[in-house]
Amino acid sequence: MFEQQRHKHPVALARPRELVVACPPMRSNVNLSRIARAAGCCGVGRMICCGTARLIDKIARDAGQTLSIEVRRTLAPALERLREDGYTLVGLEQTTASKSLFEFAFPRRTALVIGNERQGIDEDTLRTLDHTVEIPVYGLPYSHNAATAAAMALYEYCRQYPAG
Amino acid sequence: MFEQQRHKHPVALARPRELVVACPPMRSNVNLSRIARAAGCCGVGRMICCGTARLIDKIARDAGQTLSIEVRRTLAPALERLREDGYTLVGLEQTTASKSLFEFAFPRRTALVIGNERQGIDEDTLRTLDHTVEIPVYGLPYSHNAATAAAMALYEYCRQYPAG
Repeated sequence: MFEQQRHKHPVALARPRELVVACPPMRSNVNLSRIARAAGCCGVGRMICCGTARLIDKIARDAGQTLSIEVRRTLAPALERLREDGYTLVGLEQTTASKSLFEFAFPRRTALVIGNERQGIDEDTLRTLDHTVEIPVYGLPYSHNAATAAAMALYEYCRQYPAG
Repeated sequence: MFEQQRHKHPVALARPRELVVACPPMRSNVNLSRIARAAGCCGVGRMICCGTARLIDKIARDAGQTLSIEVRRTLAPALERLREDGYTLVGLEQTTASKSLFEFAFPRRTALVIGNERQGIDEDTLRTLDHTVEIPVYGLPYSHNAATAAAMALYEYCRQYPAG
């Protein structure tokens, strides 16, 4: 009944994705590379990383071929610039005012801000955000891995904008 | 405006999740452990693994405390049993008849069958499935990591059944 079709053509976007992924300094380039692979598959064109960020090819695969990776010292100036360019800054973090990712309507032009694996999104960055979204958690260990959470948020964005 | 709240209470399920995650022999216990962590966070109670499957605690964290992990030699008899118990067998695989995860309505009682990192879901297993779902891919490297794809499917199921 079902035959594997492992090399299907990718879905063509009707317009370039107006989604930027912004990562603070992360603990692990493994997580960073996993986020890059997921972002590449989602058709994201731009990812901002900080600190000693470096993609591990074995994990990120060819993501870097279409995804432009910008490495900065800190995130703040880049976020400021994105805001000037009309991006809504959406942080993936549990906060006092975070909305469920199940119900959040992403603006098309979104900068998705990821949290560090241990510290999450720091206070200074939180102050600059327009929204925070959280992924409902039901059981142990009560928190998703940072790259897993990022993948879920990327998925949700694409679900809302299946053609870009 | 936003204050971090990193230890929010998990969401209580109104009823136990009727979702089982079923993995064939996987290449990597890292991926298996990532799937277990995501499944645990999603409130899944049962995961079936095959072969030399073993959770890596550093990655799966406490997922094994509430998620029962069953290790079998092969997947086929377990899937047969799940079908007898009323589960719809849904494979995460690109096939000639796969539906987009964006549009697929999961039956509440679902066994989500994951694919091996290299081979995907094998032919014999494909023959036993009721549905196959695929995640639309837009850019390089044109395929999601197996654990990332599993996390996206788990997220989508929870989105459809936010209270169990």
